[in-house]
Amino acid sequence: ISIVGHSEKCLCSGTGISHFQLSRIKKLDVYPETPRCAKVELLATFVNGIRTCLNPKSPWVKRFMGKLLKKRFG
Amino acid sequence: ISIVGHSEKCLCSGTGISHFQLSRIKKLDVYPETPRCAKVELLATFVNGIRTCLNPKSPWVKRFMGKLLKKRFG
Repeated sequence: ISIVGHSEKCLCSGTGISHFQLSRIKKLDVYPETPRCAKVELLATFVNGIRTCLNPKSPWVKRFMGKLLKKRFG
Repeated sequence: ISIVGHSEKCLCSGTGISHFQLSRIKKLDVYPETPRCAKVELLATFVNGIRTCLNPKSPWVKRFMGKLLKKRFG
C-alpha cells in the first residue's frame, strides 16, 4: 500500500489499511473530495511515526470517527 | 481565537470556530486526546490557506464529519 503521492491526483493509491489500533493514532489528516481527487482520503500518523492511508470503508475507521464524535463532540 | 500553540499542552486554546462553509475545508487535522492534551482537537486548513481550530461541539463539525462518513465511507 503506497503511502503518499504515488497517484498524481490522489494522495493515496490503493484502499489503505483497514485494521489498526485506535489508540495508536497520533493524528489523522482528512482530505475531503476535491476536483483533483474524487474520494475522501485519510492519512494517519501513528505514535511510532509511520504515516499511512486508512481505508475509509473500514469498520475500524468508522469506529475511530465515531469515538471521536462521541468523545468531546458532546 | 488563537490558532496554534498558545496553550503549551493543547494546540488550540479557546473553543475554535463554530460556523464555516463545509466546502471551504481543504484539509482537516484530527488530533485524538493524548496525555498532553485531554481533548480532541480539530485544525482545519481552508482553501484560502487559513488554518484555524474548529469547535468540536459545533453542529457544523458534526455535519462535516457525518458527510465524510456518508460520502465514501458508505
